[in-house]
Amino acid sequence: MPFSEGDFLLIEYTVTTKEDGKVVDTTSEEEAKKAGIYSPEEEYSAKLVILGEGTLLKPVEEALKKADVSQEIVVEVPPEQAFGPRDPSKVRVVPLRELVRRNITPRINEVVEIDGQKAIVRAITGGRVLLDFNHPLAGKTLVFRVKIVKKVEDLSEKLKELLHRWATSLRREDISVKIEDGKVTIELPKTAINVDNLGAVLRLFIRDVKKYIKDVTEITFIEKVPLAE
Amino acid sequence: MPFSEGDFLLIEYTVTTKEDGKVVDTTSEEEAKKAGIYSPEEEYSAKLVILGEGTLLKPVEEALKKADVSQEIVVEVPPEQAFGPRDPSKVRVVPLRELVRRNITPRINEVVEIDGQKAIVRAITGGRVLLDFNHPLAGKTLVFRVKIVKKVEDLSEKLKELLHRWATSLRREDISVKIEDGKVTIELPKTAINVDNLGAVLRLFIRDVKKYIKDVTEITFIEKVPLAE
Repeated sequence: MPFSEGDFLLIEYTVTTKEDGKVVDTTSEEEAKKAGIYSPEEEYSAKLVILGEGTLLKPVEEALKKADVSQEIVVEVPPEQAFGPRDPSKVRVVPLRELVRRNITPRINEVVEIDGQKAIVRAITGGRVLLDFNHPLAGKTLVFRVKIVKKVEDLSEKLKELLHRWATSLRREDISVKIEDGKVTIELPKTAINVDNLGAVLRLFIRDVKKYIKDVTEITFIEKVPLAE
Repeated sequence: MPFSEGDFLLIEYTVTTKEDGKVVDTTSEEEAKKAGIYSPEEEYSAKLVILGEGTLLKPVEEALKKADVSQEIVVEVPPEQAFGPRDPSKVRVVPLRELVRRNITPRINEVVEIDGQKAIVRAITGGRVLLDFNHPLAGKTLVFRVKIVKKVEDLSEKLKELLHRWATSLRREDISVKIEDGKVTIELPKTAINVDNLGAVLRLFIRDVKKYIKDVTEITFIEKVPLAE
């Protein structure tokens, strides 16, 4: 079953570096915990991608188009198509006192931020610090293991997934969608007012609806808030 | 007509320093322009205050309670009840090179920020800079000229004023309010989704409604967004 541009897919994935098999990103809570990159703020569940949108690396997207639902595909992406090659000129020696002056205490393999740029501390020797301003994944071949969990076809489900991806605290099962003659009414969960940047979320959602969903002429959002203590 | 705690008043005001009559804050566009403190982002119109809420200085609030609608009252507030007395120990001499090292170019009477604290540059002489970390209004007696434009009694108008004060881009005349058996339905202007922090705005609004408006059991917000280009 080939997929095409504009299709809504829910995918699970784990990304590792080919070199040492280190997990750098994953939708699996178990994998994240094993790899020591688990974050309680992160949501570990199948993620929405819209084919052609450009959130996935090109080779992964091309492979997905030819895949089937439930099939696990493995895609190797060379640095040139991922985070670029390593640039040796981005590795610089900086006097330790320069960092101290900026209230930075460098520690090996940790990230420091200088003038808004991030660098990894590679070495500290005799008053000198070796800083690497390359992206941590520069020069690495990445291995993507991706499974398409589902192709979303239902309009109401598409809308819930889209909204959820802009504010993960809005749970899909707490969103209610009604559609009538191209007019969509979306009742948001009570918790919507806890999403500080709600206006921005709704705006991004509408931008996506205009771009990827046809025949919607009007969207009405409803937030019902009970005031009892 | 004495006012009491919890009353919603719309007021116009101009605040000057007694010493030199300089306008430091005003709801009048004309006064702001004359004083050179006009800002296009600012909204120049009568502002909502809720008596007892603590946004006004105590002496001003007390005077307002005894005032009448349309009457202009003048209240002098000594530094002790405003921004405090001047503290001479907050005036410090700093070597010029210390500022230069922090990429700060001091200019007389301008504000510089050092370690998150603001200071006014009082003097620069021979490599030394005199910085005054006192609040610019510390030690000043302030003169408030305040006029109560209106006491807001209507529930629907109270709600519009409250919402508007948390997001001034939501114009009162574009907000529609319906009330039925303690259940309030508020249709926001189409521009509501341009308020990035809309969730925070609605939350603060609800906090105020709970605190200052009785007998509302539920609030439903509606944002209707047409999708035609």
